[in-house]
Amino acid sequence: MEELFKTIEGLNEEIIEIRRHLHKHPELSFEEVETPKFIASFHEKLGHEVKTGVGGNGVVAYLKGSHDGPTVALRADFDALPIQEETELDFKSVNDGVMHACGHDGHTATLLGVAKALNKHKDELHGTVVFIHQHAEELPPGGARPMIEDGALEGVDVIFGTHLQAQMPLYEINYRTDALQASSDSFEVTILGRGGHGAYPQDTKDSILIASQLVSNFQQIVSRRVNPLQSAVLSVCSFEAIGPYNVIANTAKIKGTVRTLNEETRALMEEEMLRVIEGTCHLSGADFEFNYERGYPVLINHEDETNFLVDVAKTVPEVKEINETEPIMGGEDYSYYLQEVKGTYFFTGAQVEGSEEPYPHHHPKFDIDERALGVAAKILAKTTVEYMNKNK
Amino acid sequence: MEELFKTIEGLNEEIIEIRRHLHKHPELSFEEVETPKFIASFHEKLGHEVKTGVGGNGVVAYLKGSHDGPTVALRADFDALPIQEETELDFKSVNDGVMHACGHDGHTATLLGVAKALNKHKDELHGTVVFIHQHAEELPPGGARPMIEDGALEGVDVIFGTHLQAQMPLYEINYRTDALQASSDSFEVTILGRGGHGAYPQDTKDSILIASQLVSNFQQIVSRRVNPLQSAVLSVCSFEAIGPYNVIANTAKIKGTVRTLNEETRALMEEEMLRVIEGTCHLSGADFEFNYERGYPVLINHEDETNFLVDVAKTVPEVKEINETEPIMGGEDYSYYLQEVKGTYFFTGAQVEGSEEPYPHHHPKFDIDERALGVAAKILAKTTVEYMNKNK
Amino acid sequence: MEELFKTIEGLNEEIIEIRRHLHKHPELSFEEVETPKFIASFHEKLGHEVKTGVGGNGVVAYLKGSHDGPTVALRADFDALPIQEETELDFKSVNDGVMHACGHDGHTATLLGVAKALNKHKDELHGTVVFIHQHAEELPPGGARPMIEDGALEGVDVIFGTHLQAQMPLYEINYRTDALQASSDSFEVTILGRGGHGAYPQDTKDSILIASQLVSNFQQIVSRRVNPLQSAVLSVCSFEAIGPYNVIANTAKIKGTVRTLNEETRALMEEEMLRVIEGTCHLSGADFEFNYERGYPVLINHEDETNFLVDVAKTVPEVKEINETEPIMGGEDYSYYLQEVKGTYFFTGAQVEGSEEPYPHHHPKFDIDERALGVAAKILAKTTVEYMNKNK
Amino acid sequence: MEELFKTIEGLNEEIIEIRRHLHKHPELSFEEVETPKFIASFHEKLGHEVKTGVGGNGVVAYLKGSHDGPTVALRADFDALPIQEETELDFKSVNDGVMHACGHDGHTATLLGVAKALNKHKDELHGTVVFIHQHAEELPPGGARPMIEDGALEGVDVIFGTHLQAQMPLYEINYRTDALQASSDSFEVTILGRGGHGAYPQDTKDSILIASQLVSNFQQIVSRRVNPLQSAVLSVCSFEAIGPYNVIANTAKIKGTVRTLNEETRALMEEEMLRVIEGTCHLSGADFEFNYERGYPVLINHEDETNFLVDVAKTVPEVKEINETEPIMGGEDYSYYLQEVKGTYFFTGAQVEGSEEPYPHHHPKFDIDERALGVAAKILAKTTVEYMNKNK
Repeated sequence: MEELFKTIEGLNEEIIEIRRHLHKHPELSFEEVETPKFIASFHEKLGHEVKTGVGGNGVVAYLKGSHDGPTVALRADFDALPIQEETELDFKSVNDGVMHACGHDGHTATLLGVAKALNKHKDELHGTVVFIHQHAEELPPGGARPMIEDGALEGVDVIFGTHLQAQMPLYEINYRTDALQASSDSFEVTILGRGGHGAYPQDTKDSILIASQLVSNFQQIVSRRVNPLQSAVLSVCSFEAIGPYNVIANTAKIKGTVRTLNEETRALMEEEMLRVIEGTCHLSGADFEFNYERGYPVLINHEDETNFLVDVAKTVPEVKEINETEPIMGGEDYSYYLQEVKGTYFFTGAQVEGSEEPYPHHHPKFDIDERALGVAAKILAKTTVEYMNKNK
Repeated sequence: MEELFKTIEGLNEEIIEIRRHLHKHPELSFEEVETPKFIASFHEKLGHEVKTGVGGNGVVAYLKGSHDGPTVALRADFDALPIQEETELDFKSVNDGVMHACGHDGHTATLLGVAKALNKHKDELHGTVVFIHQHAEELPPGGARPMIEDGALEGVDVIFGTHLQAQMPLYEINYRTDALQASSDSFEVTILGRGGHGAYPQDTKDSILIASQLVSNFQQIVSRRVNPLQSAVLSVCSFEAIGPYNVIANTAKIKGTVRTLNEETRALMEEEMLRVIEGTCHLSGADFEFNYERGYPVLINHEDETNFLVDVAKTVPEVKEINETEPIMGGEDYSYYLQEVKGTYFFTGAQVEGSEEPYPHHHPKFDIDERALGVAAKILAKTTVEYMNKNK
Repeated sequence: MEELFKTIEGLNEEIIEIRRHLHKHPELSFEEVETPKFIASFHEKLGHEVKTGVGGNGVVAYLKGSHDGPTVALRADFDALPIQEETELDFKSVNDGVMHACGHDGHTATLLGVAKALNKHKDELHGTVVFIHQHAEELPPGGARPMIEDGALEGVDVIFGTHLQAQMPLYEINYRTDALQASSDSFEVTILGRGGHGAYPQDTKDSILIASQLVSNFQQIVSRRVNPLQSAVLSVCSFEAIGPYNVIANTAKIKGTVRTLNEETRALMEEEMLRVIEGTCHLSGADFEFNYERGYPVLINHEDETNFLVDVAKTVPEVKEINETEPIMGGEDYSYYLQEVKGTYFFTGAQVEGSEEPYPHHHPKFDIDERALGVAAKILAKTTVEYMNKNK
Repeated sequence: MEELFKTIEGLNEEIIEIRRHLHKHPELSFEEVETPKFIASFHEKLGHEVKTGVGGNGVVAYLKGSHDGPTVALRADFDALPIQEETELDFKSVNDGVMHACGHDGHTATLLGVAKALNKHKDELHGTVVFIHQHAEELPPGGARPMIEDGALEGVDVIFGTHLQAQMPLYEINYRTDALQASSDSFEVTILGRGGHGAYPQDTKDSILIASQLVSNFQQIVSRRVNPLQSAVLSVCSFEAIGPYNVIANTAKIKGTVRTLNEETRALMEEEMLRVIEGTCHLSGADFEFNYERGYPVLINHEDETNFLVDVAKTVPEVKEINETEPIMGGEDYSYYLQEVKGTYFFTGAQVEGSEEPYPHHHPKFDIDERALGVAAKILAKTTVEYMNKNK
């Protein structure tokens, strides 16, 4: 088993080739066709059992070790974003308006590399590896939940996964033993007022005023109702009530997002929003429609599994720094897996060297340092092996 | 001169025919082509001097009486609205999406009838009648101002005009010796915030929140800063900041209208709005663009001329009731004429008999009782004659 | 009857003496003791029938003319204000903290002068004069209503009265044929929140925030719900929630006033306030107590009686100008009389000559020009006589 | 040194007696007279060097061990609160309206017990113990800062202290390696408007409306400007603008508190408040006075010293549970010591057994389980000794 890191090093070039192939041919969430075929074919060539169409466009592959032992799942997502790429890479996207601008190409290439590496060592493996290749992470309701419902986690004891971070230095690893990423919900409120001529407000129920008061009144939820030790965000991101300058609109529609770091606060937000909407509409006797859509839940890492992985990461020679990070308010549907089985999710630094202000994720010029893939592969592969050894 | 009413009665059928012709062929504000041709041709046949293209699409015709005397202007507007007619009239609009839904067809037919009637009596006329056929009343900046700038009021001593009112009983006349219609201004405010991800509000200047606070803060202008004995309206009628549910917008744009009944209050409104915008943007350190567009001024009738016309109206046999009315908050660019010369503007009841809740102006089913045209014609014609006689 | 003006001129000195006596000995609303005695004694000496203790501290005196005819009431109020006088008058108040700073001393002196003058002419009088000396005009619920309930208007056909105006030029008269003074109501709202430590807002219902939102939300009533052609004021004048800097208060209490110029708007204000209070409290799930106290109603003059008095006023030689005035938003319980009988209330200019910016009513340096009393007396006396003559 | 715990157990009764004596004779912050005398006398009897009047009413005593070594400070506060005690304890406060309702009596008794115990073992002590008996913790600006300025920390290498917690189970210890308690600032804003009659708002600058808008606008600071991963509270706790129901006030004054858990957020709060005040006042053209008073800073424990104390606490037989706690938003001027020297502050459970919902601190029925004092004494004494041994 000491050869594992060498095996991966030998695969590094192939991993990067895969990543570049995927980068050149990105596919939108829920519209993935070629990518899952590519993945399935790769695993089939390795002789892995492969299930396709899992929960939609997902792919699950199985590597049975020669010995009995636990079942370890590794997850990588493979969808891309509706962004027009503006990099000057040789392997720039050939699909107009679609781009791997979040590193999922790297996640998938890494996982395929891990698959090939572990396959080479299957005689020493005590247990089964489940490769969860997930579609549609970027677009709620996401691919994770339907894949789970379709059996992706069947028999799985533990799950590991990573996200490449373009704004975190190469060779750094960030982990967190508790909530790592926020719940990410969306909402829409339509104020049902009564329109009329702008010169005669007394005959109307002014939906723009009501929706405006609502945006202001929402502020009190975070400032007064949420425990200040808890994190919560309520952002109204869209306000639509367009009309001529002199006709008061019948309706106004606002949309936005809610983020929290625990489920109690999340439930509180929805409850308080309803109260604030009711009160605000009552001011003018107006009606409303309120639709609160729960997106991804809080991603909560399990403490023991996190510490286990961190200990493995410390043994990877390239890794220079390992830090416990603060949570981030962005969402991730990996959270669904952690609601079902133990495991952890961590961040692998992938900042392009020399770029002091690297482009953020989802930017048309987003890029990663490909050396990060090998690092992530080593951590995932060795964590798998060690976990099996410890729990065989 | 006693024959004047009889003359008009003899023309009633022709007036109605003209109205129906115009109704069938409506033209939008500033796009009038056939209507001014029709009007000019009518006057030319009567031998009147005619100027076309006055201040745009306006037409001015002159009838010189046989005797010296004052110059009396009569004004009718002739543009239509961007509304798809939904009546079942025989002479329904043949122009898709364009409709005479405010009675301007009636105004013009009335004035042409008056022209023909007074022409028949020109030997007895002491002075000159100026027929001001105005385009584009419905759409600021309107046709009145450019027509005035192009000389429409040259030499004019006094002006009279009327608006047919579909929601006022037939054979009723409403007047007012002071402010009759509101100033009608428009404004646009663009909040220049700083966009960003909805999960990280601390990195943004939330333009939707700022614009929402602005809509609320505007309320204090009417409620606190305007003398309660004065009338003022500030309505925000459009709010545009459309985006995805999770991205805070860079900018938000609101539009609306301001109405007042005197120029001091009007100036106060603009001044206070600027103050409120400045303060509200300062709350979040945001910038703004504020564009306040003065539309039609307050329509202020002159007392003596109003009373003069009212006294004439009392002599019209059909007129059953004459009342001093409250002002209305709608605007009218007849106000520009009254800033230049003395005169008055009054309302002629034109409610269709039997319709208890008549359709309002600008409604696709708007209609008038055509008998009102003869009444208006009598008042305008006789006021002209009497005014000349009194001031010859 | 031509001698009436001369009679009054002969009484001018006495009227002024009376005024100075009353000014020196002011008494607070509902605490009047000596003033009603003084008034009663004056009428008794004239042989008038006198009722004291009418509806509290009110005095009503009756002068029967020698001939039959209508019953004409004249009203003057006689209470003073809780203000420490700061004038340098010889007859400055001797009662600490109490001052006739609104001219009621002048009203009463004028009416006593009128009483003496009419008494001298009683042989020519066709009808009865009722002198209503009212207490407690300054302090709601006022003296007018209880005096009416106690019979002060029994048999009365018409009522006249005036208010001396320190900021209106001497020898000017202002009238209005419609609403002259506003309804004047008061309200109190107590927010029943839940207090707690300022560091833990999530455990509280923040009554100060709720009451603050309420003050802001109230603005929409005048700006959006009231017809802009109507006048309305809602002022929150007191906000009480005092505590240490770090303890959120259980309750917050606001008080204020509502003014309108018609009863429909008045009812609308109360109704909309309740709606806004309910909605605002709902935002935080708090309770409230709302007490809306109707004070004086709108003072609405009767058209014919107003015009009648104006015609009389034109015959008073000193009167230089008579104008129809705008309404004022201050209240006056004379309004109750006009709800019961016909009549009018008018303003008599009493500005001290040479004072360009005279001190306003209720100011510690308030003063009037005493020549106004004779003018008011002539108008009231002659209006009484003429009204009797016309209606005998 | 193994005898230390036994020594303390032998002193338990005396510690409790001292606590009861102090409880019976509480003294208000900055008004402490007898308590410091009592403390000084206790130390003097032990032969300790004692300084009184340190930074006000503080007392500092010194115990020199027989051997060289580091200087360890232990701190206990001794002031009481302006609360009327409502317990039924035998040793209830005899000072009307003053009560030890926060456990400072217990802190002081514990520290005196520790002093006596360590004194007994002074031959084995490697270093000096500094007993910091602090006055005035309850009332900003507090006693800690002036005591430090007066030399209380001179030569000190490390400081330890504890707070007894009435709502935390007996025999539990809570610690935190980072920010434990919030910064606690106060502020006062006076709106300088322009008063006037409630019926004429247009002549005023409505200070109550402005202050109300300010309270609402403050909400956006926590909800939008503060990083959601940071904790911050801004509570307006007092609103004073009291007047008659119909006179708009000249000024309105609000007071409140600001809490944060790091100095950056603290600075941000003050900066943003100024911006919001400026913007809100600008809405009405009003002026303001803003006074932001920095109270106690964030209490930030040092990691190594915290872990050191925790390891000691694990050896105390009574201690059943030791947990890392969340921070609390309440302030504590122990924070000043930790800005100067290394050290930690921890919580000792003192909930009265059988009380499921114990009265909170600052409640008139507040009480503690006295057995907690012995536990705290053991931890503080042994930490002192062990620290000396390790760093000698």
